[in-house]
Amino acid sequence: LIESIEKQSQLEERLNKANRTIQIQKSIVDQYEEFKLVFDGLERKYNGQTEEIEKLKEELAAEKELRSAAQKTVEELNTEIEDLTASLFNEANKMVATARKEGHALEVENTKLTEQLREKDSILEILNLQVKNLKKILQNV
Amino acid sequence: LIESIEKQSQLEERLNKANRTIQIQKSIVDQYEEFKLVFDGLERKYNGQTEEIEKLKEELAAEKELRSAAQKTVEELNTEIEDLTASLFNEANKMVATARKEGHALEVENTKLTEQLREKDSILEILNLQVKNLKKILQNV
Repeated sequence: LIESIEKQSQLEERLNKANRTIQIQKSIVDQYEEFKLVFDGLERKYNGQTEEIEKLKEELAAEKELRSAAQKTVEELNTEIEDLTASLFNEANKMVATARKEGHALEVENTKLTEQLREKDSILEILNLQVKNLKKILQNV
Repeated sequence: LIESIEKQSQLEERLNKANRTIQIQKSIVDQYEEFKLVFDGLERKYNGQTEEIEKLKEELAAEKELRSAAQKTVEELNTEIEDLTASLFNEANKMVATARKEGHALEVENTKLTEQLREKDSILEILNLQVKNLKKILQNV
């Protein structure tokens, strides 16, 4: 009986120890449950970020396209300005050349006409002299 | 003694049950440890994403700045093209007007000279006639 009682008290002690272990483990298991919720929260945030990254990448691609389109337009406009300036100056130069040519032709014409006038004046002078002389001769007849 | 033995067997059963519970809980606690590693991995990935988002946002801001700068340049160049075209046409028109004015003055001058020549021709004709008549008179004297 004594042996039996001793064994019983040993068993009781082991049972108590086991129960304490169960208590400690239970609190860890409870923590685990809470931790799972924390994990779920983080996972949701992670998935949210993944979406955000996708969106940002799309936005960035769109922005890059707009930027390169605008920069291409800048290049085209610069070329246009060069071409425009060149062609307008070209036109202007042609017009100046034409105007000068026409002006020159008229000046040549003027010089010629002035020369002709001078010649006529010389002839007139000679004729006037002739008329004068003839009249003198007639008076003396 | 019988009572004692019975109690002992009860205790043994409870102890076995407790040990089984401990085993089950232990496997859950082990799972928890593994799960913590999974959590750490996710947390690292989450932090990595947070950095990536920062970088993408910076890149996007830079890209937007470049884009709006390029678009501003496009506007400026369009204005420049308008102004340039207007001022060059203006210049060209002035040049045309000047050229026409000069040409017109020369034409007026030409008309005047031509008119003068015609007058001289008339006078010459009259004088020639006079000379002819005077010569005829002299022959008959």
